[in-house]
Amino acid sequence: MAFSERVSRLKSSLIREILAAAQRPEVMSFAGGLPAEAMLPHVQWQDAPHTIGQYGMSEGEPQLREALAEQARQLGLPCTASQVLVVSGSQQALDLAAKLYIDKGTEIMLEAPTYLAALQIFQLFGAQCLTVPLQADGPDLARMRACLEQHRPAFVYLIPTFQNPSAVRYSEAKRDAVAALLDEFEVTLIEDEPYRELTFDGGSATPIASRLKKASWIYSGTVSKTLLPGLRVGYLIASADLFPHLLRLKQSADLHTNRFGQWQAMQWIGSTKFQLHLEALRGFYRQRRDAFQAALQVHFADLADWQVPQGGLFFWLSLKQPLDTRTLLGAALERDVAFMPGEPFFSDPEQNHGHLRLNFSHIDPARLDEGLKRLATVIRQAQAA
Amino acid sequence: MAFSERVSRLKSSLIREILAAAQRPEVMSFAGGLPAEAMLPHVQWQDAPHTIGQYGMSEGEPQLREALAEQARQLGLPCTASQVLVVSGSQQALDLAAKLYIDKGTEIMLEAPTYLAALQIFQLFGAQCLTVPLQADGPDLARMRACLEQHRPAFVYLIPTFQNPSAVRYSEAKRDAVAALLDEFEVTLIEDEPYRELTFDGGSATPIASRLKKASWIYSGTVSKTLLPGLRVGYLIASADLFPHLLRLKQSADLHTNRFGQWQAMQWIGSTKFQLHLEALRGFYRQRRDAFQAALQVHFADLADWQVPQGGLFFWLSLKQPLDTRTLLGAALERDVAFMPGEPFFSDPEQNHGHLRLNFSHIDPARLDEGLKRLATVIRQAQAA
Repeated sequence: MAFSERVSRLKSSLIREILAAAQRPEVMSFAGGLPAEAMLPHVQWQDAPHTIGQYGMSEGEPQLREALAEQARQLGLPCTASQVLVVSGSQQALDLAAKLYIDKGTEIMLEAPTYLAALQIFQLFGAQCLTVPLQADGPDLARMRACLEQHRPAFVYLIPTFQNPSAVRYSEAKRDAVAALLDEFEVTLIEDEPYRELTFDGGSATPIASRLKKASWIYSGTVSKTLLPGLRVGYLIASADLFPHLLRLKQSADLHTNRFGQWQAMQWIGSTKFQLHLEALRGFYRQRRDAFQAALQVHFADLADWQVPQGGLFFWLSLKQPLDTRTLLGAALERDVAFMPGEPFFSDPEQNHGHLRLNFSHIDPARLDEGLKRLATVIRQAQAA
Repeated sequence: MAFSERVSRLKSSLIREILAAAQRPEVMSFAGGLPAEAMLPHVQWQDAPHTIGQYGMSEGEPQLREALAEQARQLGLPCTASQVLVVSGSQQALDLAAKLYIDKGTEIMLEAPTYLAALQIFQLFGAQCLTVPLQADGPDLARMRACLEQHRPAFVYLIPTFQNPSAVRYSEAKRDAVAALLDEFEVTLIEDEPYRELTFDGGSATPIASRLKKASWIYSGTVSKTLLPGLRVGYLIASADLFPHLLRLKQSADLHTNRFGQWQAMQWIGSTKFQLHLEALRGFYRQRRDAFQAALQVHFADLADWQVPQGGLFFWLSLKQPLDTRTLLGAALERDVAFMPGEPFFSDPEQNHGHLRLNFSHIDPARLDEGLKRLATVIRQAQAA
């Protein structure tokens, strides 16, 4: 049996195991990043045209591309529909970027921590990960500059708005500074923004891609966090030099994104009903965030430090007494509690013990307090042992 | 700008250009592999459960996996639902197989000719292509054995039933012989069957994968040719040793296949209404095939040789006076006719001039005669020049 060399880097997926365990109905799960079922909009299909059953264009539906370009321009990103590629969920944007850039040993730059499924696919393709620590307002700029002076990464992958897992939102100043650095060193930006619309304090900031003057860029988004993840509709917008390659890679990956999902997304993007839905969603998640914060203060004040997330779906806890949080999973699941250990969000997990990612959007509020209490108990017992 | 080494193998897509040109409404296109719009079933969505808007399992919907396993068992393929992976169109099965097996320089074995999008993605990943010529009843077995004695391909990729582009259906004897060869040399089989249900003479044959005793295998199918390509729902069924790797590669590619498309597919697979639809589809395409054959005899009898396809969507013509059919494209498009040159279906196109793939399922019957007449004129003029 001779597999590709690549397959030796396929991780046994801790995450798959956690999420599988979290499926048991008795489990109180803080593990996933799922929207609350109560906030999934009811969608209508009766006006979907018969013709979308046919094969479609690899680029995506023209009307959807127009709407996504318009939405991006309103965020300050100068682009046209010709730069928009509809993808099968924004995870696919990472697959296409990996194919475009990564050979075995290719250096790339990531935030530490970063989105673990991005880390997985980049490492699958053989990337060497350079990392820049995140601070409360964005990356450590001195470290970023020092790294760019010594290395020439193929791209920098950033999640500047309510990052998964840390919930960090870059300040305006850091967005400008990062853009200037990328222009100076002419390094491609991959800017991943699934959480932009889930803002709880009304604050906003334009994409880093919109601040670039020279560097190439890929900006990606999705309807999974705002509409319905089951549609599997995401998109990327790319600088004109990158677009033709990404399009051909998309075509070879799955021909095109499902047209029913694209049609449904078109019914929402840019519409008043979508704005109303987003407002309701923000209100709903803000309440859940506040309730989570209150419960955390009761059970975790002496155990961990954290920032209250201003958006997104996660609290990121740092234990005052760090330990390898992966070792807590067994005991937590025995008590019917699931959470996401922090280590897999780092390319060097052994140097980054002691963080937990807790999702606040999906747990039944009636079970929140009990779940956090049990989790705190598991941590206390491990620390005492 | 440093892309991956892989990207240097991204072909400028002749096919994309042909299909784009064929979009012009005045063009008579024999180029694509599109179902006839008239035969796209009208689908209902009103019973789709609200919960399929949520994230789903990477494996696919459990009920759909059960139905696909049952369908495969009825074809003689021993399997359970645990071996079924729902993918985003069967093109994705090729992407996952390429990731699983192909490093730069990895040898693989293909039919000559073979499906050009398979060739493209395997070559993108760096495969070295070994080829076995197709005869009217399947591959040249002596050449296949000789090749297996000298090489150790990572897999053999075959389309044994109404192949795209040649329409060849392997005989029972050749299916047995190929299975025995793969077992003898312990080479993995990738068996791609998008056209199995489009049979016009009622003949059938069990999959080669069902005849294997030792070798690993991936069997792939789709609803794109029988139901709606716009759903982007395909599947693969794999031997138990391969499945866990393919599942993780699927997860890293796009998390999971869109659940609305999966739900729709579930409403059809295994149902009486699907059987009735398939019967209607076969009758419809049989008529189109017969009309195409009649028109070909008028315009191409002196120009080319061909077999009447017993299934699938294509006629495969071999010019009596071979020339590089790619050179005909410009003149054909000027006359508002599109077709698919044969060369891109070979890993060594320069050694395989003189074939044309003509799709008979999609052209308006009222324009069929005129289209073939114009195409014949283009060929005659090129041969005279």
